[in-house]
Amino acid sequence: MNRRMAAVNILEDREALAQWVAENRRAGRSVGFVPTMGALHAGHVSLFQTARQECDRVIGSIFVNPTQFGPNEDFQRYPRTLEADRILLEGAGCDALFLPAVDLIYPPGHQTVVRVGAVAEGLCGACRPGHFQGVATVVAILFNRVAPQRAYFGLKDYQQFLVIRQMVRDLGLAVAVVGLPTVREADGLAMSSRNRYLTPADRHQSLALYRAMTAAQAVYADGQRDPTRLEETAREVLTGAGIDRIDYVAVRDRETLAPLTRIETDPVLLLAVHVGVARLIDNRILQSEL
Amino acid sequence: MNRRMAAVNILEDREALAQWVAENRRAGRSVGFVPTMGALHAGHVSLFQTARQECDRVIGSIFVNPTQFGPNEDFQRYPRTLEADRILLEGAGCDALFLPAVDLIYPPGHQTVVRVGAVAEGLCGACRPGHFQGVATVVAILFNRVAPQRAYFGLKDYQQFLVIRQMVRDLGLAVAVVGLPTVREADGLAMSSRNRYLTPADRHQSLALYRAMTAAQAVYADGQRDPTRLEETAREVLTGAGIDRIDYVAVRDRETLAPLTRIETDPVLLLAVHVGVARLIDNRILQSEL
Repeated sequence: MNRRMAAVNILEDREALAQWVAENRRAGRSVGFVPTMGALHAGHVSLFQTARQECDRVIGSIFVNPTQFGPNEDFQRYPRTLEADRILLEGAGCDALFLPAVDLIYPPGHQTVVRVGAVAEGLCGACRPGHFQGVATVVAILFNRVAPQRAYFGLKDYQQFLVIRQMVRDLGLAVAVVGLPTVREADGLAMSSRNRYLTPADRHQSLALYRAMTAAQAVYADGQRDPTRLEETAREVLTGAGIDRIDYVAVRDRETLAPLTRIETDPVLLLAVHVGVARLIDNRILQSEL
Repeated sequence: MNRRMAAVNILEDREALAQWVAENRRAGRSVGFVPTMGALHAGHVSLFQTARQECDRVIGSIFVNPTQFGPNEDFQRYPRTLEADRILLEGAGCDALFLPAVDLIYPPGHQTVVRVGAVAEGLCGACRPGHFQGVATVVAILFNRVAPQRAYFGLKDYQQFLVIRQMVRDLGLAVAVVGLPTVREADGLAMSSRNRYLTPADRHQSLALYRAMTAAQAVYADGQRDPTRLEETAREVLTGAGIDRIDYVAVRDRETLAPLTRIETDPVLLLAVHVGVARLIDNRILQSEL
């Protein structure tokens, strides 16, 4: 194996990024952007690979954004694995990495936030107050500084994807927001940086998320259209596996995340649970026919 | 007089605007933007003329933004004078006018807001809850759609200028925010679309704003550095003229609008009062030496 990989251009200050952006604009090159918090895994790789196919230049960012973590959440211990990330980025064909310090994004006196309404309010928005305001604000800042034509997000964070898509529409940002399918381990667990927190026993227990979604999908395909019954089916699998800290199990409109009394178009099932010290989320669009 | 004036290119839909923006970008032309609510006057003309001098292309917008008016404010009766505005724009060298309907800016389901913190919280922010959130949000939308290199605002709306400048810094928007001096009538009254609301008696009373600022400036130049005393000087002129509905008379830090206990750099004096049915604001940077 002698595959050559170009070194990723690391951009740590505002001017270096602005110059990279301006050069691509002058040259008329399209830019694809993958914002991340690092601790990269195969899910991120799929985002970079798709960006590579669709755009002339690909830039990632690694920024563990403090404002999207609650006071009792895992900001301090969130995994930082920059050297491994860099190797992975080179292999995935990433051209540049924006690696800002916190005070580049939030300089002293920073006081502006972006807040998305209804789609950000339930589910993780209710469990994690301020989370989506932090996400929307940092993504708006990153989009403005990176000025990409396309930006790539994993659908594992389904509500986040909808929140960002809504923000981009509402603020008129000139970027196409692309959501790509969740990448899973062979046994079905969704790839997540937080899977590193799982002990072997946790890892075994976490498989209940995938089984819960599969069970709900099965009864949905059999014709069950009562959202509450579908949620119960999934919840029983979780509790049967000993998962007792469930933030939510919810069948919602797949575009607005509004609660449903009747199902008229295929909805999304969303789960959030705690396993060990990890909070895990997953989701699945339920399909009438597979 | 046979001065020829090019017709202003009226852009009423998103696609027409996007095409105008893309053409200028392709051609490498700089764009200057003057967002307005119409009812244009000599203050607006000065913004367009400066934009004309500094940029390759000049675009204005007229949009009476409902979200920056409170429920008991003058949204419904705000002056709409499109034909006169158009003639004035042609004379001022404006190339294009973005004239969106409300649902182009806020389509059904719109749910995202931009909120600026401390600098937007006192003064007009306290008197007009939600006002600056409405301003910041619509200006962010307009900036994203128009994508100007420079945008021009009158310093008559001094707090608005600081709020927009802060938002642009905090969100990393690639636009230079330019504030231009207040244009005044010969007798000192600041130009404002709302001056149309004034009866002749109101118009006479409104001159007290300018006199109040002049009086405060005089004692400041004489060495007075107690913010409360400076405010009292201005307030006495207002009440002496029979103005009894005073929203605020405030001497503040000219960059942050923070209240001052000691004056170390020349501050700004800001006034907001009601005269007849009009709410009038004005301000002046106090100067140690004139």
